[in-house]
Amino acid sequence: MDAADFRRHGHELIDWIADYLDGGVRAYPVRAQVAPGDILAGLPASPPEQGEPMADILADFRRVLLPGITHWQHPRFFAYFPANNSLPSVLAELLTAGLGAQCMVWETSPAAAELEERVMAWLGGMLGLPAAWRGCIQDTASTATLAALVCARERATGGRFNLDGAAAPQADRLTVYASTETHSSVEKGAKIAGYGRGRVRKVAVDAAYAMDPAALERALAADLAAGLRPACVVATVGTTSSTALDPLRPLGEICRRHGLWLHVDAALAGAAAILPEKRALLGGVELADSFDFNPHKWLFTNFDCSAFWVRDADELVKVFAITPEYLKTAHDGGVSNFRDWGVPLGRRFRALKLWFVIRAFGVEGLRRRLRLHLELAQRFAAWVQADPDFELMAPVPLNLVCFRARPRAAASEPELERLNAALMERLNASGRLYLTHTRLGGRFVLRLSIGQTGTTADDVAAAWDEIRAAAAAPYPDSGGGAGRRHARKEDR
Amino acid sequence: MDAADFRRHGHELIDWIADYLDGGVRAYPVRAQVAPGDILAGLPASPPEQGEPMADILADFRRVLLPGITHWQHPRFFAYFPANNSLPSVLAELLTAGLGAQCMVWETSPAAAELEERVMAWLGGMLGLPAAWRGCIQDTASTATLAALVCARERATGGRFNLDGAAAPQADRLTVYASTETHSSVEKGAKIAGYGRGRVRKVAVDAAYAMDPAALERALAADLAAGLRPACVVATVGTTSSTALDPLRPLGEICRRHGLWLHVDAALAGAAAILPEKRALLGGVELADSFDFNPHKWLFTNFDCSAFWVRDADELVKVFAITPEYLKTAHDGGVSNFRDWGVPLGRRFRALKLWFVIRAFGVEGLRRRLRLHLELAQRFAAWVQADPDFELMAPVPLNLVCFRARPRAAASEPELERLNAALMERLNASGRLYLTHTRLGGRFVLRLSIGQTGTTADDVAAAWDEIRAAAAAPYPDSGGGAGRRHARKEDR
Repeated sequence: MDAADFRRHGHELIDWIADYLDGGVRAYPVRAQVAPGDILAGLPASPPEQGEPMADILADFRRVLLPGITHWQHPRFFAYFPANNSLPSVLAELLTAGLGAQCMVWETSPAAAELEERVMAWLGGMLGLPAAWRGCIQDTASTATLAALVCARERATGGRFNLDGAAAPQADRLTVYASTETHSSVEKGAKIAGYGRGRVRKVAVDAAYAMDPAALERALAADLAAGLRPACVVATVGTTSSTALDPLRPLGEICRRHGLWLHVDAALAGAAAILPEKRALLGGVELADSFDFNPHKWLFTNFDCSAFWVRDADELVKVFAITPEYLKTAHDGGVSNFRDWGVPLGRRFRALKLWFVIRAFGVEGLRRRLRLHLELAQRFAAWVQADPDFELMAPVPLNLVCFRARPRAAASEPELERLNAALMERLNASGRLYLTHTRLGGRFVLRLSIGQTGTTADDVAAAWDEIRAAAAAPYPDSGGGAGRRHARKEDR
Repeated sequence: MDAADFRRHGHELIDWIADYLDGGVRAYPVRAQVAPGDILAGLPASPPEQGEPMADILADFRRVLLPGITHWQHPRFFAYFPANNSLPSVLAELLTAGLGAQCMVWETSPAAAELEERVMAWLGGMLGLPAAWRGCIQDTASTATLAALVCARERATGGRFNLDGAAAPQADRLTVYASTETHSSVEKGAKIAGYGRGRVRKVAVDAAYAMDPAALERALAADLAAGLRPACVVATVGTTSSTALDPLRPLGEICRRHGLWLHVDAALAGAAAILPEKRALLGGVELADSFDFNPHKWLFTNFDCSAFWVRDADELVKVFAITPEYLKTAHDGGVSNFRDWGVPLGRRFRALKLWFVIRAFGVEGLRRRLRLHLELAQRFAAWVQADPDFELMAPVPLNLVCFRARPRAAASEPELERLNAALMERLNASGRLYLTHTRLGGRFVLRLSIGQTGTTADDVAAAWDEIRAAAAAPYPDSGGGAGRRHARKEDR
């Protein structure tokens, strides 16, 4: 493949992506409608010995792979969480790929290191984080949680895991606290960092699924009495299941009193803190030791881009820094070498897309789009509440609506679960929208997450129509829903 | 920014990257010639409230950031290790960015999961790995090493870190073995996984800087006698300092005898195993438990793309799998959910670029380019050996030459170190080439790593001319080297 081919196919791909993100994605089923093995069957068992023309590869992409893509950028993708993309972010990724710079230390790309420092300061300011905190980009919130857990482990053992060179005598007594609604990455991180999965205490939540500070106090007292050594609390701002908001200030005060590391995981919800009217989400965050949110979820920035801040960078770097001879440079004393801020040594130039996105949208432009998502979630929640055949299953502080169908005829919980699971599968199999489920208070609950870049009022209205029609139909909807898609034009 | 703007600037960037990778990069100094803070000074302290035109952002990229980019794709980038890029890989990254799919589980992108399975099988076959092994893509070799260390920890404690929920009683006695030349990621991983840094035994190397199996046996015997619990050996095929090759077969036999986890880190050198004549590099790899190499180093694939295989995927998944309700899907039993194969939950569609690269080059096309790099390294090593003012400092089994200037006048080691450090800085400050150093047997050594996609015989010859001229000049070369750049046209 030569430069002329690259130009030709590059221009073709740019046009394809422009069409795709400008509405073309609507032509595809949201969730891939393939069965396990379907895609594999279309892929040869051996690689080609000789190079193939890019035209053939791109044709195979369309023919073989595209049917197996679940379209996260579809405006009717309401599943999991948004991973909202944007045109400036795609351009930045293209440029990052073209430069192919390895941004592990300052000298290997000074512009990447300094831009990362600057955009993280911009972002921290947009969220109202303490000005003295310092941040860097991680791949995911899971990795950020792991980093926090390792720092907490070291603080609780006086650095003896690392500094003495072996686990401290009481290391097997360390404990971690998070709510029953916390993300699975806390247990995963605790397993990796050697706490042991069973050392994660699941603290009870209140009626809004937020961690109950009194329950945390009780858990700490019981563990201390049993001779255990509390090390870390992970508070979640915007849980995955229902966007519940753990109360940072009381949790932070408890952590201060006990000398515990407080990590705040705001993976999804952190983005909303750029709205002055939602700043209260992070009230008390100044009591935390570390904080993470994902611009790659709800801030129009391509995955991966997880924004991680620490109160005291030294406590983090102490854990992750190792400088062998072959990585020493003349500037090590005076610059940020971000390889010392996390697990991987190698680093992509991820600050570039954040810079492109923030500048191209402007802070006000970002806020405007988040406000639309928040408003659409309120609207959908109101429809659910007004319909006697549905019920709202959790408060809606942000962009996620937890609900379920509850036909007047259905009575038992097992019956409701079967019915809602079937409703979800029917909707997802239609390809016209995609939503996922969770379990709240033991009940099977549908989640409608609103946050894709192209989602309009009409898309949310159409989703509601589809959901009502599918819930009312005794058998899988065989396409009749399509006509209802534009039923609520007045809401556009 | 609308779709029309995206098209315009996207086409512009495609053309810019085509020019850049097709020789345009030669116009820039290889290593960024800026001082700490230079780039920051050009970046406003606050983000814009209103969106800015993409034309302004791209102009600032050129004006403010580009001078701070170290050009890893420059054909005269001989520093660290190659991170060689290619045109098909850039197109794949563009498409991955445009799709914006989150590939954490099968259902969230079946094509990504199944393509990853297939290309990893292709790659395993190209390297001659055991056919039953299964692989996935990690971000970096550091993360792969961490995953192996956690698996080894669990095996050595009978799964008690995770299964019993807390560190096993003797967890603080676990030890890890790697050579004195191993990569820093082993110590970093050991810190994260809770072994403790001091529990990494640095095993002595032979004259070629490869791990000495007899020394490993002695270290194991001493630790066992002291009541410690050996858990893991990390063998390196192609060390970072000098591409030394730890002997896998004897190390594997020792590991089998002691029930230790053997992880093989072939981050750079694994790529060379696609050459039939270099297949011996991995002789004995079938005795290992896990293996990793980075297509993002020397296989023309954009960072990040680290290829990680395990003998027994169950042993890995047991450690990393946690399936909360909101991540359950109908297919969990029958498909690979790669989120359970490593630290992060979220995953990019990284298999796409590997597929583009392998198909566009063909296996033979990849081999041809690697053979050129190997041949150029031999040629450079021969020049060093033939020159009485230089000396070769290590064997050259692959693409890296370790050498130093040794003028007949210079005598003491400290004097040689000062002289070579100054020589390196003079060369790198010229912007005409970039190389880095290491320390072998206590001596300061220059490293010339040959592996960039665009590097030609002429580039290597020009580097040698620059190095000799700079070593001969009493003061920093003020540009006279430029004329010598084409002195060896016959070698092209």
